[in-house]
Amino acid sequence: DDLEKQIKHVLRALFQERIGRIDWLLEVNGASITNHSETFPACKNTSVFSYLKCSTSQQLNPKTFIHSDVAGLSMIDSPSMMLGNCWAMSGSQGFVEIRLSKLLRVTEAVIQHIPKRISPDIRSAPRGFRILGSLSGAETEEGSFKVLVEGEYEVREDASEEELLPHVQTFAVKNSPLVDTIRYEILSNQGKQEFTCLYHMRLHGEEATPMVSS
Amino acid sequence: DDLEKQIKHVLRALFQERIGRIDWLLEVNGASITNHSETFPACKNTSVFSYLKCSTSQQLNPKTFIHSDVAGLSMIDSPSMMLGNCWAMSGSQGFVEIRLSKLLRVTEAVIQHIPKRISPDIRSAPRGFRILGSLSGAETEEGSFKVLVEGEYEVREDASEEELLPHVQTFAVKNSPLVDTIRYEILSNQGKQEFTCLYHMRLHGEEATPMVSS
Amino acid sequence: DDLEKQIKHVLRALFQERIGRIDWLLEVNGASITNHSETFPACKNTSVFSYLKCSTSQQLNPKTFIHSDVAGLSMIDSPSMMLGNCWAMSGSQGFVEIRLSKLLRVTEAVIQHIPKRISPDIRSAPRGFRILGSLSGAETEEGSFKVLVEGEYEVREDASEEELLPHVQTFAVKNSPLVDTIRYEILSNQGKQEFTCLYHMRLHGEEATPMVSS
Ligand SMILES: [K+]
Ligand SMILES: [K+]
Ligand SMILES: [K+]
Repeated sequence: DDLEKQIKHVLRALFQERIGRIDWLLEVNGASITNHSETFPACKNTSVFSYLKCSTSQQLNPKTFIHSDVAGLSMIDSPSMMLGNCWAMSGSQGFVEIRLSKLLRVTEAVIQHIPKRISPDIRSAPRGFRILGSLSGAETEEGSFKVLVEGEYEVREDASEEELLPHVQTFAVKNSPLVDTIRYEILSNQGKQEFTCLYHMRLHGEEATPMVSS
Repeated sequence: DDLEKQIKHVLRALFQERIGRIDWLLEVNGASITNHSETFPACKNTSVFSYLKCSTSQQLNPKTFIHSDVAGLSMIDSPSMMLGNCWAMSGSQGFVEIRLSKLLRVTEAVIQHIPKRISPDIRSAPRGFRILGSLSGAETEEGSFKVLVEGEYEVREDASEEELLPHVQTFAVKNSPLVDTIRYEILSNQGKQEFTCLYHMRLHGEEATPMVSS
Repeated sequence: DDLEKQIKHVLRALFQERIGRIDWLLEVNGASITNHSETFPACKNTSVFSYLKCSTSQQLNPKTFIHSDVAGLSMIDSPSMMLGNCWAMSGSQGFVEIRLSKLLRVTEAVIQHIPKRISPDIRSAPRGFRILGSLSGAETEEGSFKVLVEGEYEVREDASEEELLPHVQTFAVKNSPLVDTIRYEILSNQGKQEFTCLYHMRLHGEEATPMVSS
């Protein structure tokens, strides 16, 4: 009973760590894809299953990256994080731009991929990346984007004691300006030349203004 | 190893607490919507995403409330409990009536909503409610419904030590007659005038008769 | 904090036990249904909900057994394991054959069903079964199949201290030849004459060759 209380306490902490706060990169929270690099062509040409190419129609659609069934509730079992529920970006470099529904001061980005041990080919995971932000209304040429954070997504073997979910990696953003558009640039991947699979990135931050809707 | 056994024991208890028993308010268990108040009109007029109005087509359909993908397995990660997977009932008062596949003596109703911390606008959660039951074949006018329980759904901050899932709230029903129709009345919500989001209510009870099907 | 570390350790072990390794019986991992016995006819004749017959259209389709939304991440909350997400095989005996995308030495099969306590009719669960394997290119008549393992799926009451998920049952395969086709034969079920519900079987094994795709 006492142990039950302690475990509940720890479990709650674990859930909250994963749940975090509102994820502004979800379609259901008003995010929309405004631009993106090419989808892997082998995905476009095939409606039938093609192993190690692209398996499902969702991989043709960049919206998979911000899909509304990306659960906010829990990383572990979110359908959006299921094997194959990713957008197949062509090549090992590319980008996706997302318009937010709010003016946001970004505090944290969380890059999600599936665990190595269930993946038949982890080389399509992203590696080097940059996250940029801009404010629309300002000029929207490329120059208006400011780098919020850059880093590397690492494929880990599930080994570390500290990490329950080593495939979920958090990157802090400091001194973010107010932005309403995010550009997620993939600079390299884990070795697959043909495509990179992007599952999801959670985006947390502080709203610039209180909500005005009644 | 000993700790592992204890934790398994506690986890199993937690799972069972959440799983409970058969949920008779699931479409997959034979439930069907027979009547309901108005869907929020802004949901009807828009096929495109409209933030803080209605985000997805499922919000047009009261069946979302008893959707077959409402997992019986676990509350925490059920897709039916994902952000936005609710029916947008117009206003802060309304109702939904559900016909069950069984004659049931109701023992418990469990109202589910999403956690406050992932919601961009928690004011659309229900507050005051009544759950009524009736037996079809008896007159089905409003007078034939009997109040099973009334109460308030509370938005909690995730603070209490006793609750792993404070957004899932259980209401006991005592001395239920045999019923085959449930009426869930929303009397107020958490402050949003335009609509109320109803995710799901689980309904547990004792069957009047053993199953006759072979 | 120390307890938190220990619990994380145990939780990780539990996750990995469930996640296991790559599940080669998933469509998203290249598996495809090549043959199967009859679907329950009452499922075919009804597009409307018919309680205790067949509730959803997915039950018409054997692909539900290897569905791409069968999460590899976790058993507990996988949508593919949700109530009703099964293929309704006619009668209490039948089979399904699945072609794999890899030459595999099978080491383990994991039969999944829903927990008894949330099922309104557990009699449609499988009981006696055999799992066979064959190598295409060899003659593909029945004679070419070799029995990998036979056993019984048991409906358990959730009672044992050792089992967090008594509805998920693992069967070891010893001395498997290289196979690329699996035949899952149901020899009996838990008492339902009309049909047997098959949710999913996970298949683990060692690949014969390293992946050649770039
Ligand atoms: K996704
Ligand atoms: K729902
Ligand atoms: K399934």
